[in-house]
Amino acid sequence: MVWTLNSNIRLSFPAVCFVWQIAMIILFGVFVRYNPESDAHWPEYRRMKNFTDLENDFYFRYPSFQDVHVMIFVGFGFLMTFLKRYSFGAVGFNFLIAAFGIQWALLMQGWFHSLDYNDGKIKIGVENLINADFCVAGCLIAYGAVLGKVSPVQLLVLTLFGVTLFAVEEFIIISVLHAKDAGGSMVIHAFGGYYGLSISWVLYRPNLGKSKHMNGSVYHSDVFAMIGTLFLWMFWPSFNSAICNHGDGQHRAAINTYLSLASTVLTTYAISSLWEKTGKLDMVHIQNSTLAGGVAVGTAAEFMLMPYGSLIVGFFCGLISTLGYIYFTPFLEKHLKIQDTCGIHNLHALPGALGGVVGAITAAAASTTVYGEEGFRGIFDFNRVAPVQGGYQAAALCVAIVFGIGGGIFVGCILKLPIWGDVADENCFDDEFYWEVRVELIYI
Amino acid sequence: MVWTLNSNIRLSFPAVCFVWQIAMIILFGVFVRYNPESDAHWPEYRRMKNFTDLENDFYFRYPSFQDVHVMIFVGFGFLMTFLKRYSFGAVGFNFLIAAFGIQWALLMQGWFHSLDYNDGKIKIGVENLINADFCVAGCLIAYGAVLGKVSPVQLLVLTLFGVTLFAVEEFIIISVLHAKDAGGSMVIHAFGGYYGLSISWVLYRPNLGKSKHMNGSVYHSDVFAMIGTLFLWMFWPSFNSAICNHGDGQHRAAINTYLSLASTVLTTYAISSLWEKTGKLDMVHIQNSTLAGGVAVGTAAEFMLMPYGSLIVGFFCGLISTLGYIYFTPFLEKHLKIQDTCGIHNLHALPGALGGVVGAITAAAASTTVYGEEGFRGIFDFNRVAPVQGGYQAAALCVAIVFGIGGGIFVGCILKLPIWGDVADENCFDDEFYWEVRVELIYI
Amino acid sequence: MVWTLNSNIRLSFPAVCFVWQIAMIILFGVFVRYNPESDAHWPEYRRMKNFTDLENDFYFRYPSFQDVHVMIFVGFGFLMTFLKRYSFGAVGFNFLIAAFGIQWALLMQGWFHSLDYNDGKIKIGVENLINADFCVAGCLIAYGAVLGKVSPVQLLVLTLFGVTLFAVEEFIIISVLHAKDAGGSMVIHAFGGYYGLSISWVLYRPNLGKSKHMNGSVYHSDVFAMIGTLFLWMFWPSFNSAICNHGDGQHRAAINTYLSLASTVLTTYAISSLWEKTGKLDMVHIQNSTLAGGVAVGTAAEFMLMPYGSLIVGFFCGLISTLGYIYFTPFLEKHLKIQDTCGIHNLHALPGALGGVVGAITAAAASTTVYGEEGFRGIFDFNRVAPVQGGYQAAALCVAIVFGIGGGIFVGCILKLPIWGDVADENCFDDEFYWEVRVELIYI
Repeated sequence: MVWTLNSNIRLSFPAVCFVWQIAMIILFGVFVRYNPESDAHWPEYRRMKNFTDLENDFYFRYPSFQDVHVMIFVGFGFLMTFLKRYSFGAVGFNFLIAAFGIQWALLMQGWFHSLDYNDGKIKIGVENLINADFCVAGCLIAYGAVLGKVSPVQLLVLTLFGVTLFAVEEFIIISVLHAKDAGGSMVIHAFGGYYGLSISWVLYRPNLGKSKHMNGSVYHSDVFAMIGTLFLWMFWPSFNSAICNHGDGQHRAAINTYLSLASTVLTTYAISSLWEKTGKLDMVHIQNSTLAGGVAVGTAAEFMLMPYGSLIVGFFCGLISTLGYIYFTPFLEKHLKIQDTCGIHNLHALPGALGGVVGAITAAAASTTVYGEEGFRGIFDFNRVAPVQGGYQAAALCVAIVFGIGGGIFVGCILKLPIWGDVADENCFDDEFYWEVRVELIYI
Repeated sequence: MVWTLNSNIRLSFPAVCFVWQIAMIILFGVFVRYNPESDAHWPEYRRMKNFTDLENDFYFRYPSFQDVHVMIFVGFGFLMTFLKRYSFGAVGFNFLIAAFGIQWALLMQGWFHSLDYNDGKIKIGVENLINADFCVAGCLIAYGAVLGKVSPVQLLVLTLFGVTLFAVEEFIIISVLHAKDAGGSMVIHAFGGYYGLSISWVLYRPNLGKSKHMNGSVYHSDVFAMIGTLFLWMFWPSFNSAICNHGDGQHRAAINTYLSLASTVLTTYAISSLWEKTGKLDMVHIQNSTLAGGVAVGTAAEFMLMPYGSLIVGFFCGLISTLGYIYFTPFLEKHLKIQDTCGIHNLHALPGALGGVVGAITAAAASTTVYGEEGFRGIFDFNRVAPVQGGYQAAALCVAIVFGIGGGIFVGCILKLPIWGDVADENCFDDEFYWEVRVELIYI
Repeated sequence: MVWTLNSNIRLSFPAVCFVWQIAMIILFGVFVRYNPESDAHWPEYRRMKNFTDLENDFYFRYPSFQDVHVMIFVGFGFLMTFLKRYSFGAVGFNFLIAAFGIQWALLMQGWFHSLDYNDGKIKIGVENLINADFCVAGCLIAYGAVLGKVSPVQLLVLTLFGVTLFAVEEFIIISVLHAKDAGGSMVIHAFGGYYGLSISWVLYRPNLGKSKHMNGSVYHSDVFAMIGTLFLWMFWPSFNSAICNHGDGQHRAAINTYLSLASTVLTTYAISSLWEKTGKLDMVHIQNSTLAGGVAVGTAAEFMLMPYGSLIVGFFCGLISTLGYIYFTPFLEKHLKIQDTCGIHNLHALPGALGGVVGAITAAAASTTVYGEEGFRGIFDFNRVAPVQGGYQAAALCVAIVFGIGGGIFVGCILKLPIWGDVADENCFDDEFYWEVRVELIYI
C-alpha cells in the first residue's frame, strides 16, 4: 500500500521547520549570550567572587542535567513506542518537538527569568538548559494524549503554544506567587497533562474505532517501551533535584524521589494483578503507573517530607494511577469524549495535581523546628509563615490547571482547523503515513 | 490459549505486595531519618564542620549512584531479556524485586551501619542509596539462576531473605573482619551467585525439558539483552568506585575496572570462537562473560593492583567464564542437578570467588612503599600488617560463600513449599502465565 | 542453512585476540602506572599542592567520561544495528574493537602525551580514559563505512593501525601545531571519516549487489538504531566538553553543542521530508544527520562561538548532511567506487571538515575583547595572534584529512590481502557467517 502525504503538509512541514529555525537563530542573535559562569571572562569573575573552578554551577548541576536530558529524549520517546506500528512517530516526533521546544523555551524562560537588564540580553548557563528540558517535558506529556492522531505540523504548533503558556504559567507560580515546585508536579505535570487532555477533547474523533486494530502493542514494542519507563524511573531523582538548592536541597530531593518511586512500584504491581480478570499483570500499568510516584513527589521533593512521607505518597500514587488506567481512561473516552492514547491523565495530570496538594500540605506544616531557622529561609526564601505558604502553593496548583485546560482548549481549536494535514480516522496509529517504512521480508 | 493464574497467587501476590509495602512505611516511620548532609539543618552543620556545599557527599557520589542505578534496573533487567518469550518477566520482575529490595535493604543495612545511637534512628544519605542498590544486586543475581521457573511471590520471598542474609554477611565481612570489598566481589557476587545456585539446586525440576523449546533466544531478544550487557559493562567502573574513598580511591577503582573489563572482552571473543564447532561467536558468551572482569576486580579495585594487574585479572576471567559456559553449565545441570538459566555461576559466583582471592593476595602483598604511609592507612583503615589483612580477606570470602550456600538451601526449602503458585514444567520460560500478552498480528 | 567459518579465520581470530591481549599486558607492565591523582600517594601529593579531595580531576571529568563511554559502546554500537540482519555484528564487533582499541590507545597516546621522563612510565588518570575513548571513536567511524563487508580480524587490524595513525596525527595537530580541537571535529571525525572511506575505496566490491536484499532495515532494527542515535545526541555535549578547561570551558562547550544539535534536528527533518518523493520522513536521515551538528561544533565548542553561532552551525549541518545522504552517497558509490554502508561521509567526514573550517574562522576572529585577556590565553594557550591561530587551525584540518586518506589507502591495501577471511559478496550484511544464529520459530 502506498500513501502519499497530503500535499499540503508536504510543503508546510518543511516550511514550518525552516521558518521557525531561522526565527530562532535571529532571536538568539539578538537576545542570547553566555552567563558569567559559561563566558570566557569567568577567570576574572571567579577571582572577583573568590570562587574556585569547582564552584562553577556546571559541576553542581551538569550530571543531573544529563540525566534529565535522557529522560526527555529516551525516556519520553521510548515510553511511547509501545504501539505496534507507531514507534517511529513516537520516538521521532518526540525528538523533533523536544529539539524545537528547548530553543523556544530558552528564549521564553530567559525573558522571564534570566534577562540582564543592563544590556537586555538573556544570559544562559546549565540551569537554563535544565529548565528548557523541563519546559519541553510539558509538551511531550501533551503529545502522549494525542499520540498517533496528529500531524507533525500540529505537534510543532502544540509545542510553540505549549512552551509559551508554560513560561507564563511558570512565571506566575514561581516568581509572582513564590510557590515552590522543584520537580514540577504542578508547573510541568499538572499543566502538561491538562493541556494535552484538553487538546484531545477538542480534537475528539468519534470514529477512531476504525483504527482500533492499530491501537495496541506487540511483544517487542512493549519491551521497547520498558526502556523508556526504566530511564524515566531511574533518573527521576535527578529530575526532581536538578534545580534544587545546592547541598542538602539536591541531596534530600533525590532521596525523597527514590523512595517514593520504589513504593509506587509495589502498589502498581499489586493493583494490576488484583483487578485484571485473569490475575495477570498488564504491561500498560507497569510501563506507566510505576512512574506516578515521581510525579507526585515533585513539588515537595525538597521539603522535609521525611522518608516515610515519601513512601506514603508513592504508595497512594501507584494505587490511584493504576486504578485510573483501569476505570478512568475508559470513562474519560466514553463519557467525557477525551481520547487519551497514553493515559497521561493517570500518569501526569492526576499525580501532578496530587503532588501540588502534597506540596501545599507539607509547606503549610513546615516549621523551623524541623527545618532549622536557616534551612527554612533557604527553602521557602520568602517572609511568610508556613500556612500562608501552603495557601500560595494551593493557588499555584489552580494556576497550573487553569492554564492547562484553558490553553489546551485554545490550542485545540487552532489545531482543529483543516489545514494541518492530520490523518484520517482509519490511518491513525500508523507510521506509514508520515514515514518511509520499507517493504519487509519476514525476519524476526 | 488462555491461562488463568492459579487462584492462590492471584490473591497472595497483591496481598504480599500490600502488606510488605505497608510494613516498610511503618518501619521507615519509626526508624528512618535524613542524615546531616540531606537534612535541612545542613547549613548549620556545614558551618560547624567548616565545609562548603560541594563537600556534601552528594557531589562525590551522586553521579556514580545514578550509574549503579542504571545497572540495577536496566543492566540486570535487560541482560535477562534474552529468552524469546520471557522478556516481560525478565525486566518486569527485576523491576519489582529491586524496588522492594532497596527499601528493605535501607532498613537492614541501616540497622547495622547507619544507626544513630543517640536517638535510635537510621540516618540516610546518598551512600545508603548506593549500598541498597548493591544489596539488591545480590538478589537479582540469584534471580538469574531461577529465571523463568519461579513465581513473583517466590521472588519476593527470595528477596526478603536475600537482603536479610546479605546485610548480616556484609556486617560480618566489613565490620567484624574489617575486610575490604569496594566492588563487592565477595559480598555481592560470590554471595549472590551461590545463593541463587543453591536455591536452584533445591528447586531442581527433573522434567524441565518439557519447556526446552522456550529456553532460548530469538534474534531481537538477543539484541535487547545486549542493552543490558553494555550498560553493565560501561558503568561497572562506577559500581566498583561508588563507595571508595574520596579522591584517589574512587579514581583508581574506576581505572582498574575499566582496564580489567577491556581485557575480558578479548579473551571472551577468542574462546567463544575457538571452542564452538563452527568457529562462530555465541551471543550467550558475549552477553555474559565480557562482564566477568568487572566482577573479579571488585574486591581489589581500590588497591594498587596496577594497570597491568587489572588486565591480567580480566584476561583470565574472560577465559574462565567463557569456558564455564561451554563446559561447566552443562556439567552443573547434568551432574549436580543445578539448573542455572542465565549461567550466573560463570558470571558471578566463580568470578566473585576469584575476585576474593585476588583481593586477598593483593592485600597480603600490600606495602607502605607502594601505597605510602598515609595511603596504606587510608585504604586498609586498620592496624594490621599486610599478610594478616590478606588472611582476613580470605576468611571474608569463606563467609560470603557459606552464607550464599547455607542461606540458599534454607530459602530454597521455603520456596519448595507448594503454596507459591509457580508454573508447571511445561510452562516455564513463558510470559503468558503471569502477564497479559496480547494476541498479535504479524508485524515485524 | 549452515555456514562454516573459513578455517583460516577460525584459528586466526582467536590467535590475534590472544596475542594482542598478551602484548597489551606486557606493554602495560613495562610502561603504564597511575598518575598522582589516581595513585595511593594522593594524600601526600594533595597536601603538597594544597588541594582538597574534590580538586582531584576525577570529579571534574568522571561524569563526562561515563557519558562518552556510553556514546562509544551503546551509541556507536546501536546506531549500526539498523541493518535487518547484522545487529549482532554491529553491536558485537563495535564492542570488540572498542575494547581492544582503548588499551592500545592508552599506550600510543600515553607515549606522546603522558610520559613521565623521570622514570619512562606513562602515568594515567581519568583524562587518559576519555582520550582513549576518543581515539577509538575514529576507528568506530571507519567501521561504519565497511559495516557488513569485513571480517573481525580485518576490523582488529583496522583498529591497530587506526589508533596508531590517530595518535600520531593528534600529536601533530595538538602538540606541534598547537591547534585546538576540544570535540575532535578534525582529529576524530574528519580523520576517522576519511580513513574509513579510503579503506572502503580500496576494498571496493563490484558485485556487492548480490547481497542487496540484506542491505536494508526492518521496522524493529530501525527502532534499535534510534537507541544509538539518541544516546549519541544526548551525550554529545559531554563529548565536546569532556577534556575542555575546567570551569567556563567545559560549561560553554556543553551549551554550544546542545544548541547546535537542537538546530540540526529541525533542518534534518525539513530536508528529509522535502526531498523524498512522497514527502515522508526517512529514518536513515533521522538516525544520522541529526548528529551532524555535534560533529561540526566540535573544534569550536570551547570558543566564544555565541549561542546563535552554534545554532547557525547546526542549521547548515543538518541541511548538508541530509542532502549528502540523498545525493552524495549514491554519487560516491557510482562514480568514486566508495561503498559507504552507514553514510559516514555525511555524518562524520564532511561535518568534521566543516567543523575544522568553523574552528579556523572563529579562532581567526577571536579577540581579547570577547574573551578577556585571561580567557584568551587560557583557551589558546599560546603566544599567537588570532589570525595566525586560524591559519594553524586550517593546517591542522589538512593534516587530519591527509592522515585519514593516506592511512586509509595504506591500511586498505593490507586488508585486501586474501588472508583475512572476509565473506563473499553474496554473504555481506549477514550475521550468520560470524555468529551462531539460532533457528527460530516465528515469535514477534
